Amino acid sequence: MAEIEGTVRPGFEPVRETFAAVADGAAQLVVYHRGERVVDVRTDLDGDALLGAYSATKGAAHLVVALLVQDGVLDLDQRVRHYWPEFAADVTLRELLAHRAGLVGSDEGFPRADLADDRIVAERLARQRPFWRPGSAFGYHALVVGALSGEVVRRATGRTIQEHFACRVRDPYTVDFHLGLPAELEPRFVSAQPMLQAPERRIPLPAANSLSGIAFNRHHPDGPEVWELPNFPEIRRLGSASFGGVASARGLARMYAAAISSLDGEPPLLKPEIAAEFAQIQSIGHDVVLGEHKAFGVGFHAMSERYPELGQGSFGHSGAGGQQAFADPRNGIAYGYTRRRVPFPAAAAPENEPLIKALYSALRAVESRP
Amino acid sequence: MAEIEGTVRPGFEPVRETFAAVADGAAQLVVYHRGERVVDVRTDLDGDALLGAYSATKGAAHLVVALLVQDGVLDLDQRVRHYWPEFAADVTLRELLAHRAGLVGSDEGFPRADLADDRIVAERLARQRPFWRPGSAFGYHALVVGALSGEVVRRATGRTIQEHFACRVRDPYTVDFHLGLPAELEPRFVSAQPMLQAPERRIPLPAANSLSGIAFNRHHPDGPEVWELPNFPEIRRLGSASFGGVASARGLARMYAAAISSLDGEPPLLKPEIAAEFAQIQSIGHDVVLGEHKAFGVGFHAMSERYPELGQGSFGHSGAGGQQAFADPRNGIAYGYTRRRVPFPAAAAPENEPLIKALYSALRAVESRP
Amino acid sequence: MAEIEGTVRPGFEPVRETFAAVADGAAQLVVYHRGERVVDVRTDLDGDALLGAYSATKGAAHLVVALLVQDGVLDLDQRVRHYWPEFAADVTLRELLAHRAGLVGSDEGFPRADLADDRIVAERLARQRPFWRPGSAFGYHALVVGALSGEVVRRATGRTIQEHFACRVRDPYTVDFHLGLPAELEPRFVSAQPMLQAPERRIPLPAANSLSGIAFNRHHPDGPEVWELPNFPEIRRLGSASFGGVASARGLARMYAAAISSLDGEPPLLKPEIAAEFAQIQSIGHDVVLGEHKAFGVGFHAMSERYPELGQGSFGHSGAGGQQAFADPRNGIAYGYTRRRVPFPAAAAPENEPLIKALYSALRAVESRP
Repeated sequence: MAEIEGTVRPGFEPVRETFAAVADGAAQLVVYHRGERVVDVRTDLDGDALLGAYSATKGAAHLVVALLVQDGVLDLDQRVRHYWPEFAADVTLRELLAHRAGLVGSDEGFPRADLADDRIVAERLARQRPFWRPGSAFGYHALVVGALSGEVVRRATGRTIQEHFACRVRDPYTVDFHLGLPAELEPRFVSAQPMLQAPERRIPLPAANSLSGIAFNRHHPDGPEVWELPNFPEIRRLGSASFGGVASARGLARMYAAAISSLDGEPPLLKPEIAAEFAQIQSIGHDVVLGEHKAFGVGFHAMSERYPELGQGSFGHSGAGGQQAFADPRNGIAYGYTRRRVPFPAAAAPENEPLIKALYSALRAVESRP
Repeated sequence: MAEIEGTVRPGFEPVRETFAAVADGAAQLVVYHRGERVVDVRTDLDGDALLGAYSATKGAAHLVVALLVQDGVLDLDQRVRHYWPEFAADVTLRELLAHRAGLVGSDEGFPRADLADDRIVAERLARQRPFWRPGSAFGYHALVVGALSGEVVRRATGRTIQEHFACRVRDPYTVDFHLGLPAELEPRFVSAQPMLQAPERRIPLPAANSLSGIAFNRHHPDGPEVWELPNFPEIRRLGSASFGGVASARGLARMYAAAISSLDGEPPLLKPEIAAEFAQIQSIGHDVVLGEHKAFGVGFHAMSERYPELGQGSFGHSGAGGQQAFADPRNGIAYGYTRRRVPFPAAAAPENEPLIKALYSALRAVESRP
Repeated sequence: MAEIEGTVRPGFEPVRETFAAVADGAAQLVVYHRGERVVDVRTDLDGDALLGAYSATKGAAHLVVALLVQDGVLDLDQRVRHYWPEFAADVTLRELLAHRAGLVGSDEGFPRADLADDRIVAERLARQRPFWRPGSAFGYHALVVGALSGEVVRRATGRTIQEHFACRVRDPYTVDFHLGLPAELEPRFVSAQPMLQAPERRIPLPAANSLSGIAFNRHHPDGPEVWELPNFPEIRRLGSASFGGVASARGLARMYAAAISSLDGEPPLLKPEIAAEFAQIQSIGHDVVLGEHKAFGVGFHAMSERYPELGQGSFGHSGAGGQQAFADPRNGIAYGYTRRRVPFPAAAAPENEPLIKALYSALRAVESRP
């Protein structure tokens, strides 16, 4: 049993107990319900410690895209090349965000400095042949989707997706989630710990130049390993829209709370129909990069495919460092979980399952009270 | 061993023996071969007892659609909104019938009285946002597809799908299958019995407001449970084209026999090319509502995906009360099975597998005789 | 341990050892690396023994299509009926080659003499209704795809796909792979041996008139069994572009080496962008004929889905007699394996997995030497 700090609202004590039972080293969990923070617990970490968000970053980046669609600035059914003429593949913005473009990595791979820079990634991929026929399949654009969607944002608005996030979300809502970590916040950053792999758990990786290897940039000799990405200062500083964000669980949860709930008297960032549009299933079935069943909405994971407790229309994004974060509009829930040790395999940590079960069970009990 | 009543033609005795061995409580089984009734057995039920058909009803409703396509009145490749201008989703009639429209239930759920009424269901769904992007996926429109296809029929012809079924199929062929049970037949109705769930078999259901919960209307507090649907008199009276039919196994089998075989000197209802068109696979793979592998033709199950003994081109529809019913044109078989106790899980009962194996084995023996 | 003849280049000895350990009866294995033959081993067969290539034939046929696309004679995105007006289904050449047309067999089945003749097969299927809606699914056109693509070639060029193969590939590169075995080479042909099926391994086949049964022509009483196809002289003589080729492992590997590598000073047959185009994933997921997960490029298997050691962009084709053959442009590998005993199940033999693992492990060791 880990020692737990923090607070829960009455009725949510079982979530704290489950967190104590399942937390795997240093971790943070924060939950909002209808705009109120009902769970804020951690172990072996401060409440405002900042950790690498890994791919949970994509949730922040694509919240920006949702806001620009809501504003009428972007149209999901426009071809990407409408905004970005150099982009060769014949796909719409919606298809790009649904991981359907087939541009999951660079033919030659990226050295670390290039991978950190969304502009370089975008330029490199714009002219490349898709690895599958657009329309025939989908596969997780693990390290690059945010560079591509971000370039669309930059071309359409003249500002980067990182700048939009800071102005529209982070600063006005004091969301502790940073796409490009300011130097003055570096002292709060807590580095990621490498995964522990017992020998019997080691499974052979696909070849470095397989499709999966390319998507995770394993075919470049100077490419970093995924687990160590946030530990490089220049990655934190540039804040790649695919994987370079830095956040606390408070930041993860508060961002999704701001997206769907009234927070401190402000209206939700997203109108319900825009939230529904981005949560709508776009790609479901065999992910050709990950080689497993996946479900994507528009730039987000379709979360209820993974956690049966969640309501239809939930949207969010996990991270390879164990993060999980989402909004569930039907139940008014915003959830953020992060941890320091990268799990094996590098993906949403398994303890999210009992945590989510405990949360929804507590929620049903709270809501059924007279 | 159950006590069995009824008759089988010479050569089909093994089907009767298998029925005796596998029937799970009160049940009926009827099989036609090239228009001749070769199996008509039951246990603990009269031969003309009428039971809820559950989703086997969809087979009756979509036989009407097939007849209207055959007549040139409906065109599968027309947009639904061509017939029904208020229908917002951009899908063809073919896609609607292949469970591709994404309108699997109501955002808010239906109270029982609304669910029973196809007109109310159709009106409610016409303007709703699909739960997935049309074209990206398919999922079983369990309780609503017949309301939607039925509204197309009503708009195109001025008559309900239930009226067409009575005039075109039920009355001329004396098929004991009723979409809207006449009051005078109520005495022959036998109510459904609830499923028996041993504690160790209880599996957690998806959340009531998950996609699956919405498809089965579990998110409405006044919504009925699926197993009890036919036990409500107004559901039997209105005869929802999705789930409200009432039939004996004789009715189920005779309907499919009339569809593909010459019966009492009349030609088959469907020309072979129309039967082939409706049996053609339209949606195959991961069903996003059921979360499992499924195969649909046009409004029917593509049956040979499920039972490897069946010929290519078989079409039919199972029901949650354990029903199974289909036509197999290549082998000249029409099959109808029903039972009183709703099985766990609520779906085609598992005893259909040994019954179908025994039937096709007997058929091969009969056909190979000199 | 089998007795092994033949040679390997320094560093590839582990491949020979693995071959000795895993070869299942008479077999041949040949590998090229960047145009050099680095492995050429066999057991219980001469190095120039010719065996039935089964579906590895499709690799030869579709290399011809790739050359014609490279020449600008064929366009993958043209409708098939542009070249062949009698062809009814509305599909492009690309879709046909990706097993998406739904014409996997004849409604009535083919007697052996008809099946052997690509012209008869093509004519029969041209007017048939697809078994699934084109676009909704894909399934292996096991015995017919080469007849269909071959008819496109014949209509567009006036010459058969077999003639093109002989002139463009076999003769100039002395590739021991024959689509239509010349009478003078018959003495080198070694007949296939039937599969050995222990009783406990026998699994029930789908019905002869199921979709799978139709694709393997099991519904015609005079249809041959798949395993015995190359043992019929007229099948070898006509050289069906789907299954009728005859080759040694040397022929299989040398063809793929010629496709992607400089051989004896000649440039590779395929430009890299054409090789990439034909390797690009077109159909991935549930194959409705085989009932299992498959991945196809344009007329070839997308090989790296099957063998994780291979680089993205690998393309090739296995055969039911146990054959495996492919090119891996990223690693400069061309691989050919054949054996005499048809394995159970009839498909790429399981020993290809350890052979490929050993090969790539040796390759990494060779390439990391100073």
